[in-house]
Amino acid sequence: MIKSLNDTIAAISTARGVGAIAIVRLSGRESVQIADKIFKGKTKLQSIEHARAAFGKIVQRDRNAVAGKEEKIDEVIVTKFQAPHSFTGEDIIEINCHGGLYVVQEILSLLLANGARLAEPGEFTKRAFINGKIDLVQAESIADIINAQTRASLQLSISQLSGKLSQKLKSMRNALKKKCALLEIELDFSEEDLEFAERDELLVDIERLLTEVNSLLNTFQFGKIIRGGAHTVLVGRPNVGKSSILNRLLEDDRAIVSDIPGTTRDSLEESLDINGVLFKITDTAGLRETKGQIEKEGVKRTRKLIEDADILVYIFDATLFHQGDCLTEFEELKRKYSDKKILAVMNKIDLIDELDEFNSKDFLKISAKTGFGFDALEKQLVNLVLGDQDNLENTMIAKVRHRDILRRTRNFLENAKKSLSNGLSPEFVAFDLRAALDTIGELTGQVTSEEILNDIFANFCIGK
Amino acid sequence: MIKSLNDTIAAISTARGVGAIAIVRLSGRESVQIADKIFKGKTKLQSIEHARAAFGKIVQRDRNAVAGKEEKIDEVIVTKFQAPHSFTGEDIIEINCHGGLYVVQEILSLLLANGARLAEPGEFTKRAFINGKIDLVQAESIADIINAQTRASLQLSISQLSGKLSQKLKSMRNALKKKCALLEIELDFSEEDLEFAERDELLVDIERLLTEVNSLLNTFQFGKIIRGGAHTVLVGRPNVGKSSILNRLLEDDRAIVSDIPGTTRDSLEESLDINGVLFKITDTAGLRETKGQIEKEGVKRTRKLIEDADILVYIFDATLFHQGDCLTEFEELKRKYSDKKILAVMNKIDLIDELDEFNSKDFLKISAKTGFGFDALEKQLVNLVLGDQDNLENTMIAKVRHRDILRRTRNFLENAKKSLSNGLSPEFVAFDLRAALDTIGELTGQVTSEEILNDIFANFCIGK
Repeated sequence: MIKSLNDTIAAISTARGVGAIAIVRLSGRESVQIADKIFKGKTKLQSIEHARAAFGKIVQRDRNAVAGKEEKIDEVIVTKFQAPHSFTGEDIIEINCHGGLYVVQEILSLLLANGARLAEPGEFTKRAFINGKIDLVQAESIADIINAQTRASLQLSISQLSGKLSQKLKSMRNALKKKCALLEIELDFSEEDLEFAERDELLVDIERLLTEVNSLLNTFQFGKIIRGGAHTVLVGRPNVGKSSILNRLLEDDRAIVSDIPGTTRDSLEESLDINGVLFKITDTAGLRETKGQIEKEGVKRTRKLIEDADILVYIFDATLFHQGDCLTEFEELKRKYSDKKILAVMNKIDLIDELDEFNSKDFLKISAKTGFGFDALEKQLVNLVLGDQDNLENTMIAKVRHRDILRRTRNFLENAKKSLSNGLSPEFVAFDLRAALDTIGELTGQVTSEEILNDIFANFCIGK
Repeated sequence: MIKSLNDTIAAISTARGVGAIAIVRLSGRESVQIADKIFKGKTKLQSIEHARAAFGKIVQRDRNAVAGKEEKIDEVIVTKFQAPHSFTGEDIIEINCHGGLYVVQEILSLLLANGARLAEPGEFTKRAFINGKIDLVQAESIADIINAQTRASLQLSISQLSGKLSQKLKSMRNALKKKCALLEIELDFSEEDLEFAERDELLVDIERLLTEVNSLLNTFQFGKIIRGGAHTVLVGRPNVGKSSILNRLLEDDRAIVSDIPGTTRDSLEESLDINGVLFKITDTAGLRETKGQIEKEGVKRTRKLIEDADILVYIFDATLFHQGDCLTEFEELKRKYSDKKILAVMNKIDLIDELDEFNSKDFLKISAKTGFGFDALEKQLVNLVLGDQDNLENTMIAKVRHRDILRRTRNFLENAKKSLSNGLSPEFVAFDLRAALDTIGELTGQVTSEEILNDIFANFCIGK
């Protein structure tokens, strides 16, 4: 559904519920006129300056058609932002009112009755994008800032809002544009057999771009974890203390209770903020094959969780030195999931007086009972995620949409490189470079469809 | 707990939960300095004007003690209000940030780490009161605006915030002050037997004040209903259709779902907004005496509900013309609760082909099944509350605290009148007038204790 930019949109922009203050926001050509119909201050909003706040009343004029009679609705502070110097690039009016459920709804209704239209989810941000105030990557990052649950994910999003990724993509596009232009001039003069684009140089440039695309693609796994959390699965024999370990972590760290409507959570998964990094930790049933149907289901589920995990924590029981076969299980796991980060932990160390051959192994030693070793465990978990990344503001990608587009970009660049190496006509090279240019444009929104936009903004909350 | 006004306080002022925007607010001497420590815009907040909004970033400087390094937290709009032209009368900084749970908490934490103290519930409003920006009646009305659930209750509260009641009380206090002063001069010159205050005139003045106090006291019942809703109880024999009527009303009108934390609601009571007036409607068990213990409890509960009701709706079954004894029950009810508003309604009128002696009686005829007569029923309910009140902005009181204080004021005025009529020494008259003056002062907060203030503001939300 394409809605006109001519409309002036309105929405409650603060969280639902009762608060001290709420904000009702207008954006569009008639923001100021509409607000002036219900605002009564020292001066009309029409005549106050950009970025200026004014105190006044919200009134409903001639209710019941009694001329001149007005009904007070609230005392408010209204801030005016003039196009193009506003978030959306349009005239914006922000009404700062008392945060009661009824009063906020009344003010919104008054705005709608006076010519505004209710904003769709994300429509303010969408307008900021359409009006060129931000690109699509930045627009997406706003939803991420709002949904950020840890320091690390917030940093990633705010860095994208600041335009770090956008800058990189822009410079890649500019480089591509130049190459395309040169090749396309050649095509125009193809009969004269001129070569505007030096072939060797072009190859080097394409390779450089490929390197950049690949290095961005390589950040995806890390970015995804920073944005959405590290899926961490506790594995080990029954009774090694998996749930005790999870409980101890929950006591030590900031458990995250998501109250974002619409998010459902596996009931066995706990979200934890450990030193600013989000971990989604699942306790599992054992891995051993069993006969019973229910146990089989448990094993199946555990295997699925392990497949999807970013981090596996394999837990040994320090007292079960005779159970050497769990070492075999651990080695198997390492072999089978060599792509995953695996941490070995020896629990119940409090029960050990003297170390024997088994429990003296070089595994992290902890006690879920006493808390011994948990500082080290948490540090190692965080290290597994952050590694030697000392700056989360490094440019990275964290969204499947971004990864998929960049993969397509890579394919086009590789095709162009191949055509070039094989001495094919510049037509082929130009075609692929143009396609690569367009895919990057899809990422930042220079090249996009209404459908893609709608998909992206539908996930926003109303009022943003 | 008395907290110093020297502190700069901070709080999240918007509703809890995820929204597009949230507001974190600072008030106090160091608001601007503290905000400048974490704000990075074109200019320092120190140097922007009053009521001016500025775009910038919230940054955490030298985290990990790396000199010069700063971590971005959010992009924000900050508005500055300078003392004394702000809500609290102090310097206020409002940080308009992205409305994510984590980011908002981070900004608040940064403010606290940089010298602000977490505000107590209602502390912003309390400061507005202490700094003389509003009186106590106005301060209380702010909580009412936020909790208002209907048009009528909102109008009542906004009228009190605008100072209508405060003005009236102020002029009463001024009149009293003058009288007290004259009498007290007399006391100073008592040996000379001078009479500064003309006795007849004084009597007239006191009587005029008494009339004013009484007319305010008379608004309490109405004000209480407008503010908190009309407790309406549906009474009648079993199976006359009480719950069907309640359900039909719920379909027709705006059912109010209170999501104010901490409010509990009788599970059988429904809150309804009928044309802007709040009704709290309860369906009851029958009134007839029964033998079973459970039924006895039901009857007891019904009687209690009736005692506490503002409006009783007695429901007849139009088809039960032979049950003339419910007429007797209705007449009894009218006699017994002559102070209450009682409405007689004849339900199931859809089942009647021809009116007989019983169901042709002049009762409001409805059908919960077809909806017939419900417009009239709703209109009558609203009329029972509003009567011929055409202006809800009339000065009225709606709080038990206000009523109790005005009752004490009335007692003092009556005592003064008695002493005066009995020709007692001006000392006695002056004492009572001074006491009346002080009680009104308690209402508006000119005369008050920290304890009373704490009681009042403890019911506010944090951030207001």
